[in-house]
Amino acid sequence: MLIIDCHGHYTTAPDAHQKFRDRQLAHLKNPASPTPTPARISDDEIRETIETNQLKLQRERGADITIFSPRASAMGHHIGGEETSTEWTRACNDLIKRVVDLYPENFVGVCQLPQSPGASVAKSVAELERCVTELGFIGCNLNPDPSGGKWQTLPLTDKYWYPFYEKMAELDVPAMVHVSASCNPNFHATGAHYINADTTAFMQFIEADLFKDFPTLRFIIPHGGGAVPYHWGRYRGLADMLKRPPLREHVMKNVFFDTCVYHQPGIDLLLDVIDIDNILFGSEMVGAVRGIDSETGQYFDDTKRYIDAAKISAEDKQRIFELNVRRVFPRLDRILKARGQ
Amino acid sequence: MLIIDCHGHYTTAPDAHQKFRDRQLAHLKNPASPTPTPARISDDEIRETIETNQLKLQRERGADITIFSPRASAMGHHIGGEETSTEWTRACNDLIKRVVDLYPENFVGVCQLPQSPGASVAKSVAELERCVTELGFIGCNLNPDPSGGKWQTLPLTDKYWYPFYEKMAELDVPAMVHVSASCNPNFHATGAHYINADTTAFMQFIEADLFKDFPTLRFIIPHGGGAVPYHWGRYRGLADMLKRPPLREHVMKNVFFDTCVYHQPGIDLLLDVIDIDNILFGSEMVGAVRGIDSETGQYFDDTKRYIDAAKISAEDKQRIFELNVRRVFPRLDRILKARGQ
Repeated sequence: MLIIDCHGHYTTAPDAHQKFRDRQLAHLKNPASPTPTPARISDDEIRETIETNQLKLQRERGADITIFSPRASAMGHHIGGEETSTEWTRACNDLIKRVVDLYPENFVGVCQLPQSPGASVAKSVAELERCVTELGFIGCNLNPDPSGGKWQTLPLTDKYWYPFYEKMAELDVPAMVHVSASCNPNFHATGAHYINADTTAFMQFIEADLFKDFPTLRFIIPHGGGAVPYHWGRYRGLADMLKRPPLREHVMKNVFFDTCVYHQPGIDLLLDVIDIDNILFGSEMVGAVRGIDSETGQYFDDTKRYIDAAKISAEDKQRIFELNVRRVFPRLDRILKARGQ
Repeated sequence: MLIIDCHGHYTTAPDAHQKFRDRQLAHLKNPASPTPTPARISDDEIRETIETNQLKLQRERGADITIFSPRASAMGHHIGGEETSTEWTRACNDLIKRVVDLYPENFVGVCQLPQSPGASVAKSVAELERCVTELGFIGCNLNPDPSGGKWQTLPLTDKYWYPFYEKMAELDVPAMVHVSASCNPNFHATGAHYINADTTAFMQFIEADLFKDFPTLRFIIPHGGGAVPYHWGRYRGLADMLKRPPLREHVMKNVFFDTCVYHQPGIDLLLDVIDIDNILFGSEMVGAVRGIDSETGQYFDDTKRYIDAAKISAEDKQRIFELNVRRVFPRLDRILKARGQ
């Protein structure tokens, strides 16, 4: 059995990468200054940041492969316009590609998108195509609120997004629904904005008929599906009140939850109420919560432990750790099969 | 043992009350039209709407008292300005007072507040005082987003709110943190906005030191605390990362969750991870989810059944159904004691 972590971010990228971003933001303020170019980063710098963090934790915790994407909180789609977002996004994705090339056994790429409030999805379509067909990526992170906590953009079920979904369907890649930083003082990023976005996206899917229009579309809602499994009765009841089909038919053929829930009772609830086929192993590491739980003596985000300890069959564990992930990411499945895995 | 439901709304108010609201909104569009006055509603009309709904369900489900407030989704603080909000709020609260006067054994009042984005809290201070000292109410519903899903106002921990908290402390009444309708197309009201607001408020409390400034302040976060119990490990870990004290000391002396979670596994998780002393019985009925769960044959919002079925002691059940509610609402405790209950 392979252990595939579907949710990892390059939160530890070399400083030079952030300095490029800083120069980009300075250029936004003073457009007369020279246009900055992405940082020159050596392979050794990348190795240093990966081997002391993600790769070390992979080995310590017993994962084989991480589906790896740029730091979510740094996507910053609300900063600057479409051009700024596009340049930053390409630099972030190119850096992920270098990690994958250095450690092809351990990482596979998922891309950030050059979203920008008010802009069309054309640049995102192009970047998804570039990342999948040229860089070998297997999916993307789609931000349901590119306005950064202001929620001034359109629901994920609006026709606005349809050209992007057509490209996702054509390339047969899923999207993780993932917001970036919050510029709204009401919302702490990882403590409120992330979880709210997960819950919000799920309810948008209930209200609309997106999956009638795109029956093969697949979304991963991270952080254990936000509030959804805990309120599973509420969502089943709301679907009924809104005269929608049962959730299993209406939404759950297309929506999957990861296991980024940082305590045993939460994971146990997830495994209890959600069909096992809709659950993908994920840890979000090195990520939102980096400390050790004083109640267990283990890292909060070592989510493999919770699944190992769960009272489900070995077959079900293999579905969560490997088989569901391969099914939702068919391009990963092809890569692994080509390697004989 | 008394069964006290801490979360009920007058969602079934007579049509004339909504027609007053409609006239008020029409007057907003055409200020030259005559200023509308609250509807004249007979006692029989009130009896009809209560006896066929809330009172009927109280009896069927075996609750004794409901802590009763105006319909939350109709508070509409984002509509019109401070004056509109104040007039509508007084009419809503006066109607609750009439229900309580007709059924003093079964209902006790909690007030809506005349919040308005950008306005000071002065009107809310005055209305809270009126409702508690003149109408005999025991608490209030405080909207953390009076901009109605736009989240353009200040966090609950901002000094903006402090004069209101001073009045709450002086009167020794708690507030339920409860948003109203959403005018943001991203957020379904009961499926996203409500739950997001609960989660958001809890994280705001973690980030700040509000309860150092107001050690006796008490908030009920409804809908089972939003996403919080399911992500209890995340919140414990975030408190640690943010160098805050442990949640039990930092927040949980002042924050309580109700039991508006509409399935057994969700309630079981709540009772498992949150101290029993922080949990108050609530149903939100007649409310957000009105149907029957096809998996159980029972109403989703008959939350008493889930607590009855939970594997906790009879003493713990009494704390949830009665003792914690009396502790958080000391004015209710006094009313009950005066009746020999």
